[in-house]
Amino acid sequence: MINRDTQLCMSLAGRPGNFGTRFHNFLYEKLALNFIYKAFTTQDIEAAVKGVRALGIRGCAVSMPFKESCMPFLDAIDPSANVIDSVNTIVNDDGHLTGFNTDYIAVKSLIASHRLDTSARVMIQGSGGMGKAVIAAFRDAGFSDVIIAARNEVNGTALAKQYGFRWQPRPEAEGIDILVNVTPIGMAGGKESTQLAYSEAMVTRASVVFDVVALPAETPVIQLAQRLGKKTISGAEVIALQAVEQFVMYTGVRPDDALIAEAAAFARAG
Amino acid sequence: MINRDTQLCMSLAGRPGNFGTRFHNFLYEKLALNFIYKAFTTQDIEAAVKGVRALGIRGCAVSMPFKESCMPFLDAIDPSANVIDSVNTIVNDDGHLTGFNTDYIAVKSLIASHRLDTSARVMIQGSGGMGKAVIAAFRDAGFSDVIIAARNEVNGTALAKQYGFRWQPRPEAEGIDILVNVTPIGMAGGKESTQLAYSEAMVTRASVVFDVVALPAETPVIQLAQRLGKKTISGAEVIALQAVEQFVMYTGVRPDDALIAEAAAFARAG
Repeated sequence: MINRDTQLCMSLAGRPGNFGTRFHNFLYEKLALNFIYKAFTTQDIEAAVKGVRALGIRGCAVSMPFKESCMPFLDAIDPSANVIDSVNTIVNDDGHLTGFNTDYIAVKSLIASHRLDTSARVMIQGSGGMGKAVIAAFRDAGFSDVIIAARNEVNGTALAKQYGFRWQPRPEAEGIDILVNVTPIGMAGGKESTQLAYSEAMVTRASVVFDVVALPAETPVIQLAQRLGKKTISGAEVIALQAVEQFVMYTGVRPDDALIAEAAAFARAG
Repeated sequence: MINRDTQLCMSLAGRPGNFGTRFHNFLYEKLALNFIYKAFTTQDIEAAVKGVRALGIRGCAVSMPFKESCMPFLDAIDPSANVIDSVNTIVNDDGHLTGFNTDYIAVKSLIASHRLDTSARVMIQGSGGMGKAVIAAFRDAGFSDVIIAARNEVNGTALAKQYGFRWQPRPEAEGIDILVNVTPIGMAGGKESTQLAYSEAMVTRASVVFDVVALPAETPVIQLAQRLGKKTISGAEVIALQAVEQFVMYTGVRPDDALIAEAAAFARAG
């Protein structure tokens, strides 16, 4: 039951989804934390962020198209967000707002927990906001042999230059060990939902396929990689892990792995 | 379960209580409305009100000390608030904020439902923000023979002049039919909690005692009036009715009387 001491956490997105709302509220209830979580959209990012501060809202997830536009109204930017000029999480400590990027934190954490070999040759396909987080995470995890594949030449070459990687327009090359997809290819509801982000030939020669697309968790390229016995990392892991990091920042409580898996499954079912 | 379509209503107060939170959330649950209600405080009323607009928060109750300071940031002021220059309710229609005063509305409504005789002689004790709402409600209900009793001479004489009533410093007079208390006398936790707002002699000669103090509902003067067989109107009726009016404005749904009584009893128990 909500009372005057209940703390609110929230999200700001152009098109609010249900994942965060279900994930956080599920954990609040299971852990008996006096919090509630609610999704919002806005036409006025400045007033929305200033409202977060003025109302003492404990935390705020930030999605497209506000990840950069929210930044001028924060009091501090954590290195996780600074490295990619993109905030997906605001933490409010008594009116002092700090911007973090838990997508970056989650990808870096998955690189470590899956023990990816930093001497491997990597292709990262995509150059949008999330692409930037993934590229920076690989660079900061110690990878140096990385090709950015992006149709957008301006973004692609700029990112390649910034991170010391190579750029090419199409996702085709020999000898790639780790294939990473950060485009909408394979995403449910998109016009490329049934397509492979990488060719069967490339998947066959690779050892790891990492697809950031979360819906569905088993995209065509992930399904193919599983059939071929490759190691896979799915977008479902990214979205759950980045949400866990937000949860820990907001509440100070880290749920155990079984409970996180339960919360993520519950959130995906919404 | 909260989802992306859940609407938020809230309150802004210097010292948030639990009544509104419990009252509204109880009714949302009983009526299966996809709303939640949460109390907030703020150090920055401008950013808080602009945040209400930017986040699409459906409604916001306003308590001390923000009832006047919120007004410059609204788009329209309803006559109920304009008549006393005090807003206790903000309704957000797609970013257009209108300020209302449901205390005024509630008192006017209680004068009508209890069929108070407009030719009666009335004494209203108190000249604060709520006092103003009560004085205006009596004037607008058609009462003309009203004495304002207020220790604060500046406020008391100004209100008397504004509403065409008389002022005197002490709550003592002959021939008063309706005794109204809008001071903290008899309020739980206050230093005058055991005192009578009006003398036994005055209560004996009156026909109605109306005490706006809500906690407890049965103040010493209400208990005395009940023992003497007088008609009584309590602050519990005011607080419940003003909350009902907010509820109707926010949701478009008017609960029946039995459910309102249940919600008010639940809210008071918190």
